[in-house]
Amino acid sequence: MPAAMEKEPLLQLRVFDLNCWAIRYLSKLRQERVQMIADTLSQEGYDLVLLQEVWSETDYRTLKQRLSACYPSSHYFRSGVIGSGLCVFSKYPILDTFLYQYSLNGYPYMLQHGDWFCGKSVGLLVLKIQEIVFNIYVTHLHAEYCREKDAYLPHRVVQAWELGQFIQHTSKAADVVLLGGDLNMHPEDVGIRLLRGWTGLRDSFTDAERFEGCEDGCTLVPDNYFTNKKELQPFPLGIRIDYILYKGQSNFAVKCDRLVTTTGKAPGKSIPYSDHEAVIATLYVKRHGEAKAPNSNTVEPALVDIMNEARTEVRVGLHAAQRQRYSSGRMAILALLLLLLQAVMGLSSLVGWASPQPFPKFSFSVLGSLAVLVLLVSGVLHIFHAIEVKVLQGTEDQMRLALQSLQDRLSTK
Amino acid sequence: MPAAMEKEPLLQLRVFDLNCWAIRYLSKLRQERVQMIADTLSQEGYDLVLLQEVWSETDYRTLKQRLSACYPSSHYFRSGVIGSGLCVFSKYPILDTFLYQYSLNGYPYMLQHGDWFCGKSVGLLVLKIQEIVFNIYVTHLHAEYCREKDAYLPHRVVQAWELGQFIQHTSKAADVVLLGGDLNMHPEDVGIRLLRGWTGLRDSFTDAERFEGCEDGCTLVPDNYFTNKKELQPFPLGIRIDYILYKGQSNFAVKCDRLVTTTGKAPGKSIPYSDHEAVIATLYVKRHGEAKAPNSNTVEPALVDIMNEARTEVRVGLHAAQRQRYSSGRMAILALLLLLLQAVMGLSSLVGWASPQPFPKFSFSVLGSLAVLVLLVSGVLHIFHAIEVKVLQGTEDQMRLALQSLQDRLSTK
Repeated sequence: MPAAMEKEPLLQLRVFDLNCWAIRYLSKLRQERVQMIADTLSQEGYDLVLLQEVWSETDYRTLKQRLSACYPSSHYFRSGVIGSGLCVFSKYPILDTFLYQYSLNGYPYMLQHGDWFCGKSVGLLVLKIQEIVFNIYVTHLHAEYCREKDAYLPHRVVQAWELGQFIQHTSKAADVVLLGGDLNMHPEDVGIRLLRGWTGLRDSFTDAERFEGCEDGCTLVPDNYFTNKKELQPFPLGIRIDYILYKGQSNFAVKCDRLVTTTGKAPGKSIPYSDHEAVIATLYVKRHGEAKAPNSNTVEPALVDIMNEARTEVRVGLHAAQRQRYSSGRMAILALLLLLLQAVMGLSSLVGWASPQPFPKFSFSVLGSLAVLVLLVSGVLHIFHAIEVKVLQGTEDQMRLALQSLQDRLSTK
Repeated sequence: MPAAMEKEPLLQLRVFDLNCWAIRYLSKLRQERVQMIADTLSQEGYDLVLLQEVWSETDYRTLKQRLSACYPSSHYFRSGVIGSGLCVFSKYPILDTFLYQYSLNGYPYMLQHGDWFCGKSVGLLVLKIQEIVFNIYVTHLHAEYCREKDAYLPHRVVQAWELGQFIQHTSKAADVVLLGGDLNMHPEDVGIRLLRGWTGLRDSFTDAERFEGCEDGCTLVPDNYFTNKKELQPFPLGIRIDYILYKGQSNFAVKCDRLVTTTGKAPGKSIPYSDHEAVIATLYVKRHGEAKAPNSNTVEPALVDIMNEARTEVRVGLHAAQRQRYSSGRMAILALLLLLLQAVMGLSSLVGWASPQPFPKFSFSVLGSLAVLVLLVSGVLHIFHAIEVKVLQGTEDQMRLALQSLQDRLSTK
């Protein structure tokens, strides 16, 4: 093949990514927006559509029905109590799917945050287009509710690490790796630096030849009717938390020709698709001269610092989890002691050792049921935090091992 | 390279696999047996040791300390409340590790079965020996407590499927794939046929050139002092549930030269290592002439039937889970109604609408706390079974997609 031919792009891929904010009974104008999204997707005919927060399977079925002509292949990833919210529509047949649920994902008792109930996951799709193998990943990480005091940071760092490891271990046979989704991390956050450093994935926003959309590529902007303006106050331009990342492997290279975000409104409409902006990338896949070995990613020495930073966050989380495990365990023991004491009192009154006053049945039963309740709740919490401790310890362990391998590779370069 | 050279084995690998039955406070003669296992492992100097049911990290540390000279690299996989019980010792450096926790693993309220608390998982290790990449998997699936009425069969089938998918997706760059562990399945069970058919892994027992050990390769035998003789009554020879499976990929082939099991006692000792027999394989890795593509496993038409059989089991589990989700939800609603009724009664007595008789404070409070307790427990159960339903539906979906791809591949052959 002549050199000029080699540089011709083999394939153009148009990818649409959107956090749909389609929560039944809670999201505003949900059905109208789902219909709007379906309209746009069928008009535009993208190659690949990666959606998040499609919490209701009814919405997925609506989309599937509307899009079946244009996107014959689709998949909904089921996990958690209400579903992962992740789904994909593809012009090309999906050959295989696989789901990895993150080991940590918030706390079930934080009902107002709800993340735990979604079973946040990363979904993998395998596609083959013109004999090029694509590993497509779609994900949604734990939300950030308070940037100043982010209790979920260790969980999100664990998720970013597991996401990176999942991609690295499952993408060895892929020619092109593509990740789209709501990572709930600003571009400079430790989790995304870890993910990008560890996997070698490139950011379509920084790499795009042409960009059109919100300033700085933001995807949560004050101009959007549905966003919480108060939360965005510290960021007048908005924040960028939705990404399309990619890399070429073996003898393929990927280039982002054009990146577009919506700008607070769906084009030609009065309302936006969602509280997030859509991210639309036009990628070109080219063939290289020579094949790269799957492990030949250049190791950046800066990655060592990033990994140490991430380990520190994991350790902070570990200390918090250990404290919570301890205090819930102590509470369970106290409740148990109270119950034992009550049992002794109850028995002694039965055998007639008690005072001549009538036995206080009412306060006794109220106290008893309170103790049972506290025992149950703190017991379950103790188990939950024990699992959290194990996962954080395990992650710290894996990170230490990875760091060691990394340093070995750096020193033998 | 001359043809004769090509056939020379490149590498010999001696692998030791054992379910150690090391449960703190519960397993008999635990510490003595851990010491015995450490003695044997350091004397024999295997290349790779795959252990299960090392539930206590203290036992792992004891082993690590005793074995550090002979096995410089080791890893303990942490998951669940008490740890996965999985650990490995290796003569060669471990380059990377990854853990996949199965989506379903029994029920937390089945305290007597305890599987849920272990967070059953598959651990992956990456080794490189003489430039050959080894992906080593160690796992332990959900136990079978009653073969006639096995309530955990759908969970175990889901685990076998996830294990197969995890191996397939993560082993694309490996030259040799090796899986060791307690699969809790008899050789003809649907789960193991699915796993073997889907991954192309070969059974060291059926493939070994020489075999020494218990008849039929059994690893849970009546001759073992610790086994439950009553449970083994239907199987006079015992059962085979511990496996070493393997395959060569790219341009490598693997052969099992010799397979050994212990026979109810540790060699030269009066007691066994565990209630399971150890499985010891001597494998040879050879280099092929030509490389095989990673996806070139021959597809067996029988796999279609196996997958349909597995899907039926998943569907049976799905119906059971849906019933349990429904009945726990109904119970929660009834408890809520009772509480509401009580609230109305309480309020009406406060505003003086009640009868002239004194308000029955004691029975009122007992009934109230009972309702709160039932509401809490059935609410948690409802959430748990809702997750179970989602996972079973998701697995059924993935299996259907995989079956479709399989049939496409078979029809284009």
